[in-house]
Amino acid sequence: MIRVTVWNEYLHEKCDAPVAEIYPNGMHNTIADFLRCDDIQVRTATLEEPECGLTQEVLAETDVLIWWGHGAHARVPDEIAQRVRDEVLKGMGFIALHSSHLCKPFKLLMGTSCNLGWREDGDRERIWTVNPAHPIAKGIGPYFELPHVETYAEPFGIPNPDEVVFIGWYEGGEVFRSGCTFQREKGRIFYFQPGHELFPIYHDKNVQTVIRNAVYWATPQVRAEKNECWHLTKLEK
Amino acid sequence: MIRVTVWNEYLHEKCDAPVAEIYPNGMHNTIADFLRCDDIQVRTATLEEPECGLTQEVLAETDVLIWWGHGAHARVPDEIAQRVRDEVLKGMGFIALHSSHLCKPFKLLMGTSCNLGWREDGDRERIWTVNPAHPIAKGIGPYFELPHVETYAEPFGIPNPDEVVFIGWYEGGEVFRSGCTFQREKGRIFYFQPGHELFPIYHDKNVQTVIRNAVYWATPQVRAEKNECWHLTKLEK
Amino acid sequence: MIRVTVWNEYLHEKCDAPVAEIYPNGMHNTIADFLRCDDIQVRTATLEEPECGLTQEVLAETDVLIWWGHGAHARVPDEIAQRVRDEVLKGMGFIALHSSHLCKPFKLLMGTSCNLGWREDGDRERIWTVNPAHPIAKGIGPYFELPHVETYAEPFGIPNPDEVVFIGWYEGGEVFRSGCTFQREKGRIFYFQPGHELFPIYHDKNVQTVIRNAVYWATPQVRAEKNECWHLTKLEK
Amino acid sequence: MIRVTVWNEYLHEKCDAPVAEIYPNGMHNTIADFLRCDDIQVRTATLEEPECGLTQEVLAETDVLIWWGHGAHARVPDEIAQRVRDEVLKGMGFIALHSSHLCKPFKLLMGTSCNLGWREDGDRERIWTVNPAHPIAKGIGPYFELPHVETYAEPFGIPNPDEVVFIGWYEGGEVFRSGCTFQREKGRIFYFQPGHELFPIYHDKNVQTVIRNAVYWATPQVRAEKNECWHLTKLEK
Repeated sequence: MIRVTVWNEYLHEKCDAPVAEIYPNGMHNTIADFLRCDDIQVRTATLEEPECGLTQEVLAETDVLIWWGHGAHARVPDEIAQRVRDEVLKGMGFIALHSSHLCKPFKLLMGTSCNLGWREDGDRERIWTVNPAHPIAKGIGPYFELPHVETYAEPFGIPNPDEVVFIGWYEGGEVFRSGCTFQREKGRIFYFQPGHELFPIYHDKNVQTVIRNAVYWATPQVRAEKNECWHLTKLEK
Repeated sequence: MIRVTVWNEYLHEKCDAPVAEIYPNGMHNTIADFLRCDDIQVRTATLEEPECGLTQEVLAETDVLIWWGHGAHARVPDEIAQRVRDEVLKGMGFIALHSSHLCKPFKLLMGTSCNLGWREDGDRERIWTVNPAHPIAKGIGPYFELPHVETYAEPFGIPNPDEVVFIGWYEGGEVFRSGCTFQREKGRIFYFQPGHELFPIYHDKNVQTVIRNAVYWATPQVRAEKNECWHLTKLEK
Repeated sequence: MIRVTVWNEYLHEKCDAPVAEIYPNGMHNTIADFLRCDDIQVRTATLEEPECGLTQEVLAETDVLIWWGHGAHARVPDEIAQRVRDEVLKGMGFIALHSSHLCKPFKLLMGTSCNLGWREDGDRERIWTVNPAHPIAKGIGPYFELPHVETYAEPFGIPNPDEVVFIGWYEGGEVFRSGCTFQREKGRIFYFQPGHELFPIYHDKNVQTVIRNAVYWATPQVRAEKNECWHLTKLEK
Repeated sequence: MIRVTVWNEYLHEKCDAPVAEIYPNGMHNTIADFLRCDDIQVRTATLEEPECGLTQEVLAETDVLIWWGHGAHARVPDEIAQRVRDEVLKGMGFIALHSSHLCKPFKLLMGTSCNLGWREDGDRERIWTVNPAHPIAKGIGPYFELPHVETYAEPFGIPNPDEVVFIGWYEGGEVFRSGCTFQREKGRIFYFQPGHELFPIYHDKNVQTVIRNAVYWATPQVRAEKNECWHLTKLEK
């Protein structure tokens, strides 16, 4: 049984009517709903819960943490962000969605600015599968389309990814590495570009397939209890 | 003084009037002409010369080999292709242009099919700089455009590149990793996508800048005399 | 059910008494025996069978091919080696053991010389786990030891691996990237250094664990029927 | 003219007689002295200077920053560490020496714990060149030895390096990726393992060659003025 926690800033849905219409129970519940199945159990957490809903206990019981944040990255306390980072390094999977390229835990894990170019013109995006044998691309064809997205453009300020799974084409003329993997110590990380709150992107079947695949892929093989330097004993005399 | 050899199949220019008009002395001479400068000396070689113009002596005196081939890959003898591959592994730089993704030396070096999708609709391509700090991108802005190209599409059947420098956007809807680097033993390899013979692509200033940068980048640090397994002597007693 | 084929040159065991003593039924059968379980079925193939036992039918029914060769690499026909390479690119997993760093299929897939330094002094090797979260390292501690091995030394003439899982320390003073992964198109490749025929290495429990893990890891997600360039239709009008 | 700043914690040399004997003017001055030449100018900075000697002005005039820290990582203010990190992302080269695997700027840039195993038995280390064509290995043979070092062991808690240039062998039985490169946005980073303060390691000719090579290699191609997200204008109408 894989234990997933879906974290959502959960602000747009409460104060922005068009968003509330698309995600009446919040984006986190939409994501939780399509993920739940025989071998995945899901809980949710949001910004305004105590400790952002991410206590040490919750993280200890989380195999894969999915993160959606946008306007309130700064409101996540540094210690929560570091707690998440530390759990990833010990093995917890981490999936950063869309504008979470700037969330604190992702930036801490990447070590870079994670900056990019952006515009909101509701462009069509065609997402090409660059690595069709990757487990995250299972069930996805050569490409799939999203009728309206927020456009992101290169150069994306990330380290060279371990694997580029998807590259996005935008009708307005840009490209973007829309699906990238990173291993950081024992944890697997997937960044996935689609997800602007004003479009029903998490209702899209292909997007759901990618996120579900990413959950399986990011589930830890091992989970360390601590992460410290260790003193050696000389092996050869 | 960097010693460059520009190899060209040199068939289209001789039998196809529109190509001859663009490249009256052959593409190799166009490329050689824009490369020649105070610290780069250039010679050319073509398919129909003896040994394809690539004798062991020529390769030994070549720091960087640039390759353009299209319809006659099969006419390059296997032993010439292996000779080129062997020199790259010993340190010679290698720049594969456009349809040379299927030339024998590049395929030998990659170990993969190097297959891709293609169409000839004279699309506009916008080439985005993904890695603006890379020496090959020096002097190139966030992107540059080519009014007409042959379209290539992902998934490109190459190993995960060491670095993706450029990604191409096509007006017809595709994306492609248009500039990729690979180190293979002591040799540096750059694949660069633009270059269809029916368009004056090697007359484009940005394309010329990229190829010139790639020559400097691919110039060997060291050049091995041979490449064989070696017998060790135990160091610790 | 994962379908494994273990290929062995199978010459040493037939003509070299000390080797025959360690592997009375051939190394391939030792490996097959420890792999067989509820979800792995195994067949074997050897050099002197027709088509080296690797007909197109056999490969089509093979999820992961394990290869052990040493003195007779040249006796494997080029067309068989290319057939294996082509199947890997379409998705078949490939595990190259020990001296198979120089076998034809591995060299074709790497595109490099795969050369290294070597000596046969029966050194102790201590194999360190560099990437403890990798599925291939599951169940392996910080390191394990083999009392007697053939020593290999860097620089190993391979492309930069996707992942280095193990690095070997030799009592005589050398280091070697003893466990490396490579994805080549749809196929996953693992190179594993231990395995000299004069030592009972494939009877070692840790070695068995690593090879078993590698089988699970290399099992294809997808298997292409063909691998050719494809003609595109313009998507945007 | 490459502008190098050598930063040193500079505490051991002031309070520990054996260290003072090896580095009477501090390690930073030893390093500065061997680097100074016709095309490298060097300044130094230390922990106890105002702003650790690393004002915004100093960093703006630094092409490559070399860092040596050990016991007082925590005394470097977070804002100084972030300032260094930000400059690296904009292009400044960064060379982290020895125990600086735990310095704040390196940890910020890696995003990982950078933990490792260690012991102080004065082991001999033999450093193998894994990538002999790398510019940082220029002039270094297949290996070089240091008679006494602090031992570090894998798994080193870093992201998968872009390139592993050196791997260390220790007489006591360990291995370590002793020379690793990372590109982070526009900045190049080199980690180099040797350098325990109790041994005269920075007086060693091979160590000096490696650090000098790393300075040339890490010198920026470009230097950004700022690093922010940018708003796009739609290119295609």
